[in-house]
Amino acid sequence: MKLYTFHRSSASFRVRIALNLKGISYEALPVHLSKDGGDQNLAAFKKINPQSLVPVLIDDAGHSMNQSLAIMEYLEEAYPEPPLLPEKALDRARVRSLALAIACEIHPLNNLRVLQYLTNELSITEDQKKAWYKHWVEQGLAYFEQRLAGDRIAGRFCHGDSPTFADCCLVPQIFNAQRFECNLSAVPSAMRIFESCMELEAFQAASPARQIDAV
Amino acid sequence: MKLYTFHRSSASFRVRIALNLKGISYEALPVHLSKDGGDQNLAAFKKINPQSLVPVLIDDAGHSMNQSLAIMEYLEEAYPEPPLLPEKALDRARVRSLALAIACEIHPLNNLRVLQYLTNELSITEDQKKAWYKHWVEQGLAYFEQRLAGDRIAGRFCHGDSPTFADCCLVPQIFNAQRFECNLSAVPSAMRIFESCMELEAFQAASPARQIDAV
Repeated sequence: MKLYTFHRSSASFRVRIALNLKGISYEALPVHLSKDGGDQNLAAFKKINPQSLVPVLIDDAGHSMNQSLAIMEYLEEAYPEPPLLPEKALDRARVRSLALAIACEIHPLNNLRVLQYLTNELSITEDQKKAWYKHWVEQGLAYFEQRLAGDRIAGRFCHGDSPTFADCCLVPQIFNAQRFECNLSAVPSAMRIFESCMELEAFQAASPARQIDAV
Repeated sequence: MKLYTFHRSSASFRVRIALNLKGISYEALPVHLSKDGGDQNLAAFKKINPQSLVPVLIDDAGHSMNQSLAIMEYLEEAYPEPPLLPEKALDRARVRSLALAIACEIHPLNNLRVLQYLTNELSITEDQKKAWYKHWVEQGLAYFEQRLAGDRIAGRFCHGDSPTFADCCLVPQIFNAQRFECNLSAVPSAMRIFESCMELEAFQAASPARQIDAV
């Protein structure tokens, strides 16, 4: 397997965690998102993903897949062990909805291309950009916290005592939140689970600083 | 089943289509998103979904689920016929990545609460708001078009000749694009598939104008 990835991309980070948890080895092919115009906008990469987004997973037969959650569902189906979704349909819905609460409600608003549009087209200040970032992260994580704190299904991880898609999405979002100095004191359950995740080598090895393209 | 829904909410619209395609009857419980402060922000609804978002599906045993794609995956697992995902893992990844190209890359940027933030906090003009909306819809659909146009797997629908999650996401996005007068002449394959979908009663019956809360 090959993974087009960027060390700080949280969508890539999710897939790196899932690959590591499943013990699937892969070759990392770095795409530098913030260098000059961004390597994701080069013609060579647009052939791989016209949407100019990482991650892109290439399987051993050369098939290309994108969108982090679609890739994770693929990995779950093609490499079922260890499972990253619980067994029962209702539990799976819970885990997926937690994952989507990050992937659809927080991360898309704070993507590089969105921050660039706010700066370049709407001429917002650096302070306004930081406030925008914090607003969506803090509001989104507060909701995530409320769900975890009120739910006895949350254990060492978001769903019981083994990691799932929800944890694969939570950890990169916390990394981003820390990088942008968001207030995380209001989300103790999320932070407790984050710490549990970071005790595992699968999460550690997927972290930005451990990537070959980390500077 | 009960579905908390709003006629113009495209995430609710996706789930309404999926329920109709699977022939599952449900009671619609309207939540008026744009009335005064928005019914989604009332304490009574926050008990149902603290994130103040529709849709929320309540199954016959009273279990609550949110996030449209998590609900659709649940329906697919609990009510497999007719399937809304193809059989093979790679094909399923293709369909999910098309669905997510809308659910993660277009829709979150044009959500009501985001447009409200842009207006209230960043004081953008009505014209800038329209430009923002169009930018993400037109860019996102252009990518969607590129994937469909270059792929022989696309048939009458996004994946072959029966509807999938991708179509459930595409149709509401086109409705929104039309409402905001986006340019759709550049996406002929997407529009052809949209027209195919709208020939089916399952899609028609899910459309905003056919909902009990449509004004």
